[in-house]
Amino acid sequence: MNGDDTVRIGILGCGNVGSALVRLIIDQADVIEGRTGVRLEIARVAVRNLSRERDVPLPASCFTHDASEVVSDPSVDVVVEVIGGIEPARELIMDALKAGKPVVTANKELLANVGREIFETAEFAGVDLLFEAAVAGGIPFIRPLRESLVGERIRRVLGIVNGTTNFILTRMAEDGSSFHDALGEAQSLGYAERDPTADVEGYDAAAKTAIIASIAFGARVVAGDVYREGISELTAHDMQSARQLGYVVKLLAIAEEIDGSIAVRVHPAMVPNQHPLASVRDSFNALFLEGDAVGELMFYGRGAGGGPTASAVLGDLIDAAKNLVSGSRGATIGTLARKPVLPIDEVESMFYVLLEAADQPGVLATIANVFGENGVSIRSMQQSGLGDDARLIFVTHRAREADLRRTVHQVRELDAVRRIGTVLRVIGDGA
Amino acid sequence: MNGDDTVRIGILGCGNVGSALVRLIIDQADVIEGRTGVRLEIARVAVRNLSRERDVPLPASCFTHDASEVVSDPSVDVVVEVIGGIEPARELIMDALKAGKPVVTANKELLANVGREIFETAEFAGVDLLFEAAVAGGIPFIRPLRESLVGERIRRVLGIVNGTTNFILTRMAEDGSSFHDALGEAQSLGYAERDPTADVEGYDAAAKTAIIASIAFGARVVAGDVYREGISELTAHDMQSARQLGYVVKLLAIAEEIDGSIAVRVHPAMVPNQHPLASVRDSFNALFLEGDAVGELMFYGRGAGGGPTASAVLGDLIDAAKNLVSGSRGATIGTLARKPVLPIDEVESMFYVLLEAADQPGVLATIANVFGENGVSIRSMQQSGLGDDARLIFVTHRAREADLRRTVHQVRELDAVRRIGTVLRVIGDGA
Repeated sequence: MNGDDTVRIGILGCGNVGSALVRLIIDQADVIEGRTGVRLEIARVAVRNLSRERDVPLPASCFTHDASEVVSDPSVDVVVEVIGGIEPARELIMDALKAGKPVVTANKELLANVGREIFETAEFAGVDLLFEAAVAGGIPFIRPLRESLVGERIRRVLGIVNGTTNFILTRMAEDGSSFHDALGEAQSLGYAERDPTADVEGYDAAAKTAIIASIAFGARVVAGDVYREGISELTAHDMQSARQLGYVVKLLAIAEEIDGSIAVRVHPAMVPNQHPLASVRDSFNALFLEGDAVGELMFYGRGAGGGPTASAVLGDLIDAAKNLVSGSRGATIGTLARKPVLPIDEVESMFYVLLEAADQPGVLATIANVFGENGVSIRSMQQSGLGDDARLIFVTHRAREADLRRTVHQVRELDAVRRIGTVLRVIGDGA
Repeated sequence: MNGDDTVRIGILGCGNVGSALVRLIIDQADVIEGRTGVRLEIARVAVRNLSRERDVPLPASCFTHDASEVVSDPSVDVVVEVIGGIEPARELIMDALKAGKPVVTANKELLANVGREIFETAEFAGVDLLFEAAVAGGIPFIRPLRESLVGERIRRVLGIVNGTTNFILTRMAEDGSSFHDALGEAQSLGYAERDPTADVEGYDAAAKTAIIASIAFGARVVAGDVYREGISELTAHDMQSARQLGYVVKLLAIAEEIDGSIAVRVHPAMVPNQHPLASVRDSFNALFLEGDAVGELMFYGRGAGGGPTASAVLGDLIDAAKNLVSGSRGATIGTLARKPVLPIDEVESMFYVLLEAADQPGVLATIANVFGENGVSIRSMQQSGLGDDARLIFVTHRAREADLRRTVHQVRELDAVRRIGTVLRVIGDGA
């Protein structure tokens, strides 16, 4: 620190989030000082391209092309990393922590892949490492989880943590759009990248799920541990069929602790209309948490965008700065325990299975038999005519993934079955 | 503190919340120590009736009838107040703070009426005063507001902060129950008191609104500043009519800062079906916040009950205990500024006005004229026949309360108007 109660900040990256952060710090510096006694000052900003025009009120002398210079600058007290990606972010953050400088990062990819190394380095150095913005943009979730709920036994977290896919699914459900048309709309609005794979195939959500599970259950979980299915196979008809049954389809990030094992997965799921997650529309995100004492909680807001993300980074930054001035530390991650990750085959859900079969006597009984033989109990069935064929929709009670998969495989082999349509997991009462 | 990292707790009150808290502390002590390094130990518990059986695993020697003895006991490091009411809670808390003991309280009545005195005493003594449970039970809202959002310019908070009235309104909307039948159901389920005035007339929500406004805007606001209307005049027909227009009726706590003035009010309002608050059902609570950078946030969960409230108290307790061990302090309230409270007459809303009038040529024009002359602009109008009469439903654009009230008064005086039915404020897009 640089004497008095001024904390000088080095920012790595000045894109969408970085420039929003710079403006927010400058706008709010007086208010923050009034409320907390700490003055935030931007010392250095590392950028990729020095010649680009930036809409931030900082002198040219603040900017540098050399990120490591920002980290090592003795006048920089706290480092904010908003570059993204694993390298060089990892090395820069490690250097800052080892130099005793608190770090605020919004980097989900980094934390979901090499989080343990970073957490342990922060722990060993006794330095704050804060990352509210890495999981759900502007939504305060990591701080409540680390602080308000540190004494709570958390059973499960269900999240809508990817705004792009939630926007697409909302358009498909509400306008009857196809996946491709809705994706196109998301792209034209800037909600989806030209290559949308990371969003629509669930990779972004899987990284966030790993971080959520690490913090909620104090366990070593990496992105690669997370079972993952995307939304690109879903059709407008699936949405309509879900609606008729009283559900809406969402891409869910699910982290739960089951008898000491961690189950982590990302996949589309049918959510009952009355569940709070069902009303999370467009590009909004939400995290729904079930705890032993607190019951159900939900945190809702913007999961991305310059303003919301910068707001979350600023909250962390103020915390780190206050701790620095007072010589204390914020909540620590502690040591993440090795806990077994439950294979997806062992996970239990309710399932929705749509299939088309010949409309003949005895077909329904034959199909129902296959479910029963595999230990999958049927909760409801709907049949509707399609000329010579019938469309059958089964919703099961809770069943193991492996049992359901075997059931579907065997049903597909039946002569009377024309095709298996969509198979979706269903979020039910306590399921 | 008593040496090493054990923090000894004195609890004032052992009713529903106090006993849930005792069990939670004992159950979770090892987990909390593992995660935070701090050991929580219950030193003393003050109860009204020493002879009552309590379902808590504590020796009889822990209990005392004398609350002030708990506060002054040198072995007590932190004081938890879950008695409720103003006296003796106020005096006990003041004594604890003056003795340098951090205080965790769930007491909304106290903070909404004499909060400033308590906040200033804590500030002067340099001691933590935490009260997450006072506003919305188990929902982490005060901590995110004080910490994550301390750098955010907050425009408005809309809350469903009373579970009893939300349960009643949900039953009226979904089952077509009358207010009295739904109240009876709430009473038989233990959600409503035998004398339900504090809940149904909005007093409980008004106290919470005062606390929310104090923290969100750093202003001196007391319960008496909050304009208040309850739900006892609402009918099942109002609910049905709201639904036909695409709305649901909720009792809202509203705190906003308008050009440096604070507007605080509690009243029923029509909330559009697609607004996140519309899906908050039964006895759940939610706080919906609009900020400059972060955009829209919502925090949802249980606003009352032993488990959720104890969970919030425990989160605060762990924070206070950690700060005590590390010799630091949590977020402070700072000095609450004097800001003018906007009179309700000056507040602007959209309005819904239902009235019955003779079904004669020219009547609609006459009524519409009265709106226009008073500067109230009509957004939509619906007319339906009732024999010789017509039922008219007006929804206005944003208008000042005073202008709307004058309009209603003048419309009522028109010969062709039989009666004015319900008048409700409407939450709209940015309204």
